[in-house]
Amino acid sequence: MTPTHDYAGRRDRLRDLIGGGDHAVDAFLVGDLTNMRYLTGFTGSNGAVLISASGPAGDRICTDGRYQTQVREQAGDLDAVLARDCPPALLRVAADAEARRIGFEADALTVAEHRALDADAPDGVELIGRTGLVQGLREIKDAGEIALLRQACRIGDEALAALIYGGGLRAGATEREVARALEWEMYRHGADAVAFETIVAAGAHSAIPHHRPTHDVLADGDFVKIDFGAVFGGYHSDMTRTFVLGHAAPWQREIYELVATAQAAGRAALHPGADLRVVDAAARVVIADAGHAENYVHGLGHGVGLEIHEAPGIGKLATGTLPCGAAVTVEPGVYLPGRGGVRIEDTLVVTDGDPELLTASDKTFTVI
Amino acid sequence: MTPTHDYAGRRDRLRDLIGGGDHAVDAFLVGDLTNMRYLTGFTGSNGAVLISASGPAGDRICTDGRYQTQVREQAGDLDAVLARDCPPALLRVAADAEARRIGFEADALTVAEHRALDADAPDGVELIGRTGLVQGLREIKDAGEIALLRQACRIGDEALAALIYGGGLRAGATEREVARALEWEMYRHGADAVAFETIVAAGAHSAIPHHRPTHDVLADGDFVKIDFGAVFGGYHSDMTRTFVLGHAAPWQREIYELVATAQAAGRAALHPGADLRVVDAAARVVIADAGHAENYVHGLGHGVGLEIHEAPGIGKLATGTLPCGAAVTVEPGVYLPGRGGVRIEDTLVVTDGDPELLTASDKTFTVI
Repeated sequence: MTPTHDYAGRRDRLRDLIGGGDHAVDAFLVGDLTNMRYLTGFTGSNGAVLISASGPAGDRICTDGRYQTQVREQAGDLDAVLARDCPPALLRVAADAEARRIGFEADALTVAEHRALDADAPDGVELIGRTGLVQGLREIKDAGEIALLRQACRIGDEALAALIYGGGLRAGATEREVARALEWEMYRHGADAVAFETIVAAGAHSAIPHHRPTHDVLADGDFVKIDFGAVFGGYHSDMTRTFVLGHAAPWQREIYELVATAQAAGRAALHPGADLRVVDAAARVVIADAGHAENYVHGLGHGVGLEIHEAPGIGKLATGTLPCGAAVTVEPGVYLPGRGGVRIEDTLVVTDGDPELLTASDKTFTVI
Repeated sequence: MTPTHDYAGRRDRLRDLIGGGDHAVDAFLVGDLTNMRYLTGFTGSNGAVLISASGPAGDRICTDGRYQTQVREQAGDLDAVLARDCPPALLRVAADAEARRIGFEADALTVAEHRALDADAPDGVELIGRTGLVQGLREIKDAGEIALLRQACRIGDEALAALIYGGGLRAGATEREVARALEWEMYRHGADAVAFETIVAAGAHSAIPHHRPTHDVLADGDFVKIDFGAVFGGYHSDMTRTFVLGHAAPWQREIYELVATAQAAGRAALHPGADLRVVDAAARVVIADAGHAENYVHGLGHGVGLEIHEAPGIGKLATGTLPCGAAVTVEPGVYLPGRGGVRIEDTLVVTDGDPELLTASDKTFTVI
């Protein structure tokens, strides 16, 4: 079953981040639902968490009456406050405990929510916006999280294999039928949910990086690009494979091998401490040298975990370096408008040695 | 197929809202993705729209390179700007066209995004936060939207009937198996997607308003509460039905009939111009008079459309009135912790006469 996570340890690590330095605050308000889940285990759709700089006794979780039972089951180690609108309720709790400088997530709170919170703040309370604190903690996965990512990726591998060996990927099926069949196989192999709307893009559609499956029919000679993932225990897998149906043309093999070479170069660049732009460039130069720079219109990859897209982003404009323990995708592509495109994507974990490849499905050029 | 919507007309209605009064702006920046879709038809995961107060010639859509083909297909009537970060790109377009007062969605932009946008704003440009403008337009559904809502609700009705008549709702099945089977039936009956994670809550779990399906097995005598919806053409259905398996106890029939009476009272209160708190109260007094006020822990309902939860919210603390053409849910519940609970929910459209009931599944007390 789902491993339990060290939520109290995560809250202590956040406590260490908020208490020191120029931006030190007395308490920190977490309103982003995924960050709340990471810090507490609570999965409700409304809530917030208060982290006290002075110690765990001041920590609180807040949600509304619908989740009274659930919050006790999932986060029973935290005192719960029940309120419809949690940020102001927790702000009052913090102010009652003598907190004066109270941090908030400037990348989660909207301008309107901030205005209301500020208007409602008790006298003497100052709101201090911070960004990326919990997201930074989430970048580095612990053993329990990696175990769930492995399982989510394994479900993806098994589902794709079941689709192919069951004959579900064939000329005559519609993109939607293939997408639904693959999603069904993910559930059958243990997925809690589908990680995102499955992309099945055939023929010229494969040149659209993010294509929504249509009722169009797969045909002999088509590229079929499939980008999909499973959720297990809250953690997402992400994988893309591109196949050719029936008979492959030389141009198809050519761009496939180009993308495969670029993807291998990107994977080989995943080292702790590597500059994110250098990782991106490792794959990008391969595609650029072949004259396809303008046909590769996105970044190399992104972090994956409780969200399908999270830190770190790996792209031309990224800042920072790759930490050991990050789980990231490597997914270069070449898209020829009106003809077709190839993307090959794996999910991997950055380690001190070679990265651990979580998505094990075959990547050799395959005609089905 | 999907009806096309009058996107240009929607943009003109927004233009009328931004150009006049104390808060008049020269241009308005829409960054919320659902609002963008409503105004343009574009369904990508990154983008923004600029609405010019001086007329449609100044309107622009922005997205990144991944969506170059898609934006042309879906919103070809708008000039497109390609950029990774759309709000600052569109701000420059507006400033180049002499816009000085530029509105933005204060309920969509985060504090951090606003800071970055403000820092990046050309000299002389003033950013003006507004809330709920497009959401207000979206509250009133046009004929094309209502047709899609009808179809989404019909898919829900057909899927539930197929589940029940196919024997899928039975003692011995797990909550998850029932949820997956119902979702499969929604796809089989034409759903583009599932509207939200299906709730199947059996026995004591039915007392948890928002329960996630587990591997627990349904048993004789259980309440089984099923809350689910389908997406069709972007529009969501939302329905809850509660059944008893095998044999019903008198207390189960009693609270079921109570909730059914309250729900009928709530539906009967759906009139154009009705105060939202009065609509909420119409159902709430029925439950309170029976001594269960504290066992009904949420609002009566919510708007439904391109999002599963949208304006107007119908609850004790709501403000405003119900417009003609709103699509809303009516979903009172009574939850007895540790024993079980009942919720009955329909989706309806407010009309000049009786509301149009979109979810047609039977609501009489049913033992399966």
